[in-house]
Amino acid sequence: MSNLAQPLTQPRPYLMNAWYVAALSTEVDAQALFHRTLLDTPVLIYRKKGSGEPVAMLDRCPHRFLPLHMGDRDGDKVTCKYHGLQFDCDGACTHNPHGNQHIPAASTVPSFTLRERNGLIWIWMGDEAADESKLHDFGPLTEGPETGVGYTNIYVKCNYKLILDNVMDLSHIDHVHGEIITTRGKLSPLVPQVRAVGDAFAARWEWSQTPAMMIFAGFLPDPKAEARHFFDITYLMPGNIQLSVGATQDAGAPLDLEGTTGQYDLHTVTPETLTTTHYFFVTRRNHNVDDADFNKMKIEAMRNAFVDEDVPLAEAIQERMGVSADDFFAMKPVLMSNDVAAVRMRRTLETAIAQEQARTAASEKAAA
Amino acid sequence: MSNLAQPLTQPRPYLMNAWYVAALSTEVDAQALFHRTLLDTPVLIYRKKGSGEPVAMLDRCPHRFLPLHMGDRDGDKVTCKYHGLQFDCDGACTHNPHGNQHIPAASTVPSFTLRERNGLIWIWMGDEAADESKLHDFGPLTEGPETGVGYTNIYVKCNYKLILDNVMDLSHIDHVHGEIITTRGKLSPLVPQVRAVGDAFAARWEWSQTPAMMIFAGFLPDPKAEARHFFDITYLMPGNIQLSVGATQDAGAPLDLEGTTGQYDLHTVTPETLTTTHYFFVTRRNHNVDDADFNKMKIEAMRNAFVDEDVPLAEAIQERMGVSADDFFAMKPVLMSNDVAAVRMRRTLETAIAQEQARTAASEKAAA
Amino acid sequence: MSNLAQPLTQPRPYLMNAWYVAALSTEVDAQALFHRTLLDTPVLIYRKKGSGEPVAMLDRCPHRFLPLHMGDRDGDKVTCKYHGLQFDCDGACTHNPHGNQHIPAASTVPSFTLRERNGLIWIWMGDEAADESKLHDFGPLTEGPETGVGYTNIYVKCNYKLILDNVMDLSHIDHVHGEIITTRGKLSPLVPQVRAVGDAFAARWEWSQTPAMMIFAGFLPDPKAEARHFFDITYLMPGNIQLSVGATQDAGAPLDLEGTTGQYDLHTVTPETLTTTHYFFVTRRNHNVDDADFNKMKIEAMRNAFVDEDVPLAEAIQERMGVSADDFFAMKPVLMSNDVAAVRMRRTLETAIAQEQARTAASEKAAA
Repeated sequence: MSNLAQPLTQPRPYLMNAWYVAALSTEVDAQALFHRTLLDTPVLIYRKKGSGEPVAMLDRCPHRFLPLHMGDRDGDKVTCKYHGLQFDCDGACTHNPHGNQHIPAASTVPSFTLRERNGLIWIWMGDEAADESKLHDFGPLTEGPETGVGYTNIYVKCNYKLILDNVMDLSHIDHVHGEIITTRGKLSPLVPQVRAVGDAFAARWEWSQTPAMMIFAGFLPDPKAEARHFFDITYLMPGNIQLSVGATQDAGAPLDLEGTTGQYDLHTVTPETLTTTHYFFVTRRNHNVDDADFNKMKIEAMRNAFVDEDVPLAEAIQERMGVSADDFFAMKPVLMSNDVAAVRMRRTLETAIAQEQARTAASEKAAA
Repeated sequence: MSNLAQPLTQPRPYLMNAWYVAALSTEVDAQALFHRTLLDTPVLIYRKKGSGEPVAMLDRCPHRFLPLHMGDRDGDKVTCKYHGLQFDCDGACTHNPHGNQHIPAASTVPSFTLRERNGLIWIWMGDEAADESKLHDFGPLTEGPETGVGYTNIYVKCNYKLILDNVMDLSHIDHVHGEIITTRGKLSPLVPQVRAVGDAFAARWEWSQTPAMMIFAGFLPDPKAEARHFFDITYLMPGNIQLSVGATQDAGAPLDLEGTTGQYDLHTVTPETLTTTHYFFVTRRNHNVDDADFNKMKIEAMRNAFVDEDVPLAEAIQERMGVSADDFFAMKPVLMSNDVAAVRMRRTLETAIAQEQARTAASEKAAA
Repeated sequence: MSNLAQPLTQPRPYLMNAWYVAALSTEVDAQALFHRTLLDTPVLIYRKKGSGEPVAMLDRCPHRFLPLHMGDRDGDKVTCKYHGLQFDCDGACTHNPHGNQHIPAASTVPSFTLRERNGLIWIWMGDEAADESKLHDFGPLTEGPETGVGYTNIYVKCNYKLILDNVMDLSHIDHVHGEIITTRGKLSPLVPQVRAVGDAFAARWEWSQTPAMMIFAGFLPDPKAEARHFFDITYLMPGNIQLSVGATQDAGAPLDLEGTTGQYDLHTVTPETLTTTHYFFVTRRNHNVDDADFNKMKIEAMRNAFVDEDVPLAEAIQERMGVSADDFFAMKPVLMSNDVAAVRMRRTLETAIAQEQARTAASEKAAA
């Protein structure tokens, strides 16, 4: 768990001035003092009465350092269990029951900006002001009925970049996963097409297979016939991969989510520490969208595929790499054509982290 | 567990030339080779035949480093399980079964001075000669029938100072504990009165509440009426807090254990390591002293209150503070009027440790 | 577990250019991708089809660092589970299913030389060429019926030298072990006779006891009468101790395995890490050699004696010594006449390690 004896502003190994998913919206109910460690930092999250707006602050009283989540809610305020200091949603101390009830100037809990979007609670933990323009919009996730979308999350004992590596290189599918999403060996021979998308980038695979991917075949005109497929993934810093996948037997249809039977997914990771990760996954499909039982079965099946097939690999790799899992290139990996997107992801993110750290160092020097 | 590869005389983070509780008297029976790690040092304790006097030495054979408690007693001597070296109560090697049975000059186990007092076995682990004048006397614990006193101990996964902090600031009671010792909010508004007591210091709270503390109310003339109360705690280095508490409905009675229905307690802590602690507690009451069932119930209830209510907080704070739990001020805590006694405790102890370390460094320099 | 982020050639705390036991022959069946961490290095072992010859390589794909044992066998090749890279028995990459299927020059898994001898699979993990002349021959283990030999292994949480210390100083027997191998106190008074054996050395004890060691008494003419005994151990770097023991009531018989009822044993250790050890044991007896039930009982009894009596001591010592278990003399142990062979073992091994490290450093300097 995190130790914040250090000042919160010391150089951190993560991209700090960015939005990460702190929780699924459904994880934080109206009453609870939810808590989770994010970027080595214990965070308290709860929802305001009435509006339900989520708020976040350091999960640690500035007096005797008890986790605030062990305390009680008093309306929109939270009271520390140890000596009864009370804090409002912004982390300001609003009551000290001791002596003359003077509230010390420094008795403020660092708070964090949250935004709730697309069924996810996003957090900004950097020292710079929260930048709304950096908050990505995965609007398609919330366009459509609730029976057409599934949310899940998984705690994984590996560096977050190993999860991103996994999704950035979809050529692993035929080797790792079972019958339901096999491409019948069609994916491995492909070299993904990488293209810039604004200041982000995307990778794309297109192929035909017979029959179609099993998750789509039953929704196509001829489940046993050949179908054209595509994968399209966009990497958005720091931890997001938007993945679209679909299949069609209509020769004239475009290979996108308009033209195919497919789904729009978000894989997003938030480091707990350098060696443990909160992995969130959301999937919205464009077919059979009103079938609640199917919906439930589908998200469970996808979660099981991750837990049973991807996670054991990621955790075994973590064990082999140790702290170097965050510094992949230092281990001099053998790279191949299928690594192009994953390598670009690491380079992009690591460049951004280095730039941020240089910026922080410069501003600290200027301040000194 | 401890690793004594280092010389025993290296600078240690504890006040070394002082008395700590090694065990409750009842923990060390007539036969056993009792062992416990104290101040990062594994210690063997057993009682001499006949006199029952307890003796202590390093729990590690100087030959092949096996814990001596794995061996056997032979009268007042202990025989190492591995190769049969035998040591007397002072740690001197008295038999080597090998070869010509020559006993090497260096084959001595470091021993520690013990004193048994007030139902507790006290240990001196410093390099300076054991100073009897520093052994505190908590005589009232052993004045009265056995049915009026209770002993217990708890292993806590936190730095020992966090336990001392807890007891030095009794304003936590209404926030942490339940109905049986609530002060009905009367304690928090008070600023404890701190006074010197010899070279130690004490803190005191006085208040009235209605009804009286539940632990005393039933023994007062009118259980539902108002009563005057006091807490008085004395901090005695390194790890002792003597706490007296009582209630009275006699307007003329002094607020002390003569004038009230109350109890005389000792909270005392011994570090196992910097992050784990042996917490010992003794309580002697001045009422209903011949009731064995009540006595048993009372010590169990007090132990449960510590285990269920204080310990989870202390261990959660330890997790948040990490190694800084020993160096509280480095974390720049917000301090309030209720911290006065706890802060003075830390300052007093840390000053004494720094002075001791300077003294040790000077004498080593002089010796070199 | 091991972290090989470091180059494999960095200075290691072990004697690297030497043969260690990687596994019992029976542990690696015809099909399995067996794996074990040896000298901090994860190793994959499997047997070739047809010949059954065992092969070994680093258990880590050079691409994304997945343990190769999680993959699949394809004849004599192994395919990585993550992205399907295929490697032959020498660790050469033979297939890349991605893109144009180009095999990167660097995509080789470091392999290790194995030799199977005496029912054991031996591994050479050093950077120098495997030196067959250093592979010891414990031929007597495999001379005789299968019902006269037993193999076992134990995972012990201690430094490997602590196991060697244990066997090098047999004076521990009467103190640690029970009735079946007691020498009735006859061993401790002896000083072992140490002699050079080629560039290795041996130690020897001779004594008489009444009755004979229980493991032999029933096979002697008069089970209750006195018998002459011997122990003879030869230390062979890095981790081998060949131990012979026997008893005879024939006054003219030589004290060796020709002249006595006895057994020829091999104790051999391979470090997993500096604090964990794979301990292998083989015993061949020269009596009752066709009794399969007795054979099974005997190896189980010996294994139980190690697990119940030696291992708890070794692990407790490890806890007391910490990392210094590898550097025993730094703890300034008290040494006695019974330590002569164990001390010589440590000095011999540590000198060889220091020489090897100097040789490595010199060759690296020359290369630079």
